[in-house]
Amino acid sequence: METAFADYLDEFTRRDWETLDPEAVADPVRVAVVGLGWFAREWALPGIARSAYTEATVVTDVDPDAVETVAAERDVTGVTPEEFRSGAAADAYDAAYVATPNAAHLDYVRAAAAQGKAVLCEKPLEATLDRARRLVAACRDADVRLMVGYRMQTDPAVRRLRDLLRAGVAGDVVHVHATMSQTMLGELGGDTDQWRLDPELSGGCALMDLGVYPLNTTRFVLDEDPVRVSGRTRTRHEAFADVDEHASFRLAFPDGVDALCTVSQNAQHASRLEVTGTEARLISDPAFYEREDRGFAVVRDGTRVDVDFDQVHQIEEEFAYFGHQLLADEPFHPDGEHALADMRALDGIYRSAETGRSVTLDEDAA
Amino acid sequence: METAFADYLDEFTRRDWETLDPEAVADPVRVAVVGLGWFAREWALPGIARSAYTEATVVTDVDPDAVETVAAERDVTGVTPEEFRSGAAADAYDAAYVATPNAAHLDYVRAAAAQGKAVLCEKPLEATLDRARRLVAACRDADVRLMVGYRMQTDPAVRRLRDLLRAGVAGDVVHVHATMSQTMLGELGGDTDQWRLDPELSGGCALMDLGVYPLNTTRFVLDEDPVRVSGRTRTRHEAFADVDEHASFRLAFPDGVDALCTVSQNAQHASRLEVTGTEARLISDPAFYEREDRGFAVVRDGTRVDVDFDQVHQIEEEFAYFGHQLLADEPFHPDGEHALADMRALDGIYRSAETGRSVTLDEDAA
Repeated sequence: METAFADYLDEFTRRDWETLDPEAVADPVRVAVVGLGWFAREWALPGIARSAYTEATVVTDVDPDAVETVAAERDVTGVTPEEFRSGAAADAYDAAYVATPNAAHLDYVRAAAAQGKAVLCEKPLEATLDRARRLVAACRDADVRLMVGYRMQTDPAVRRLRDLLRAGVAGDVVHVHATMSQTMLGELGGDTDQWRLDPELSGGCALMDLGVYPLNTTRFVLDEDPVRVSGRTRTRHEAFADVDEHASFRLAFPDGVDALCTVSQNAQHASRLEVTGTEARLISDPAFYEREDRGFAVVRDGTRVDVDFDQVHQIEEEFAYFGHQLLADEPFHPDGEHALADMRALDGIYRSAETGRSVTLDEDAA
Repeated sequence: METAFADYLDEFTRRDWETLDPEAVADPVRVAVVGLGWFAREWALPGIARSAYTEATVVTDVDPDAVETVAAERDVTGVTPEEFRSGAAADAYDAAYVATPNAAHLDYVRAAAAQGKAVLCEKPLEATLDRARRLVAACRDADVRLMVGYRMQTDPAVRRLRDLLRAGVAGDVVHVHATMSQTMLGELGGDTDQWRLDPELSGGCALMDLGVYPLNTTRFVLDEDPVRVSGRTRTRHEAFADVDEHASFRLAFPDGVDALCTVSQNAQHASRLEVTGTEARLISDPAFYEREDRGFAVVRDGTRVDVDFDQVHQIEEEFAYFGHQLLADEPFHPDGEHALADMRALDGIYRSAETGRSVTLDEDAA
């Protein structure tokens, strides 16, 4: 028994999806990075570089200065958005990573698909459900592979939490609480001239930008999709006048599991996922931010175990998975259809916030 | 500054409501205990004895064996329910503590009120909103004082949490998460022949028995009442066929504060209250059970403080407050009107669970 426990700890951060030998990768997937905002520069480019299965070769952005700076820093080819879309540098990359404002995803993904490139698109997939559907259709029609950037799905804390649920350690799941908040204007430099505050570019703020984490991570660990949603959005600070500053929502899963979620762009930093079952509580706190260590705890009757594990670079894991699945010719779990279920739920929550009624998510109507 | 911090810790468990000297109480309030279930015997009677402001003098129950046993154990007078209602032992008590099944509250409270006795009635106030209104009216018409047994309101963790909110330490409150669960059939001995499973006696199970804790405690710390509620109840285990085994609900407070709550009578034990504001998170975990130490934590930017304090006997505090306010002729915070707000919310949540729509709580219609 003790040996099994030791093995469990030793294997905590294992890549259970990995079948290739990362040391033996001769030709990593060459990635064009589309959109050079804070996240792409601070997290995605380092993650691509750290991963054995990927390398960045091309970058583009609407800001020529950003392109020039990053191209020099990373020793990669900088191109204009027009050059990217026309395929002028298409020989230099195998895949495109799209990290632009939400409403620009469709245009770049369509261009990459037309060039026959695999795509890793940031979440949420697009600014609206309709545009997200067109994005997925563009990849399907061009027969290119599409992954969506749910970095939680390759985090060991989340995968181990799912393993425990699959093994029945928590018994039947009863409910889930999840929360994610930050002071967006504070943490991101106080700039109110940003695309997340523009509903045309973002499709919404707290719910689109943060809500997708509790939503998708709960779906992932439960291995089920919500069938009914309800929610409420609120705005108090004038900077958020055109979008949702705060949101709360309930996801009703099959078999009577409810997930209660809150997100805020203007609240004290919080990040927590708690799954309560008949036999155990599983807690990740902090849960959702790449820039803080993820927590992992299991409470079962009188016993609580907290696991402090070797934290991974979340974006390295995400790109390693992306590159690995392409090289191994294996499917992506978070593919376009998977991401559309989130878009349907987000759309349903916004509709519920308008009417005060819960909304049934009808897959056929999607 | 350091001195202020030390003072804060020294004063953590102070009774901020206490104006009398407990050492100088010559004639404590004499209490008749009505209903001798597990809680009354294990917690209420010891709490009454510990409190300087109260003493138990009379007990009654529908089970004559329980009356005989407790009367002998505690050296108090045992009477039948009929004797209690007729006022046969009315000279021996000043107040009645009613801890029967919910649907029996009205009858006993009405009898005590007719005798001119003050009443401490367990929560929830009755099995239905209508009966709760009649209970409150009976006390009002008889001009007797009514307190409702919200033991969280005299717990130091909850009072200090409210103090921080009142002082603005958390900034503007954005949202609240609260959860309370237990394995009722396991923890209470596996007996499926109990009144909580009978909707006529209880008015409901998870929501009535547990939901009232997150609901009332959130109201208390926010110092506001919900204006709109929604919720869902579920039952999976056949023992709960006639009542709600699990419930989840949202309370919408004025100024856009949402509280998301879950309760379950058949889930892993959990008990947590978390208030997230713009400036801090306030966490009590464990929060709601008398039989475990309450937690208290404040997270403000990068700093987290956990306060381990001298735990009070929650029921001693509750009865001390009850007796103190009677002797000092001071009002009860958790009075009948206060408790009716919970009953309106619980009623609204059950109605929302039936219709899938949120319900506006109209005080005028109450």
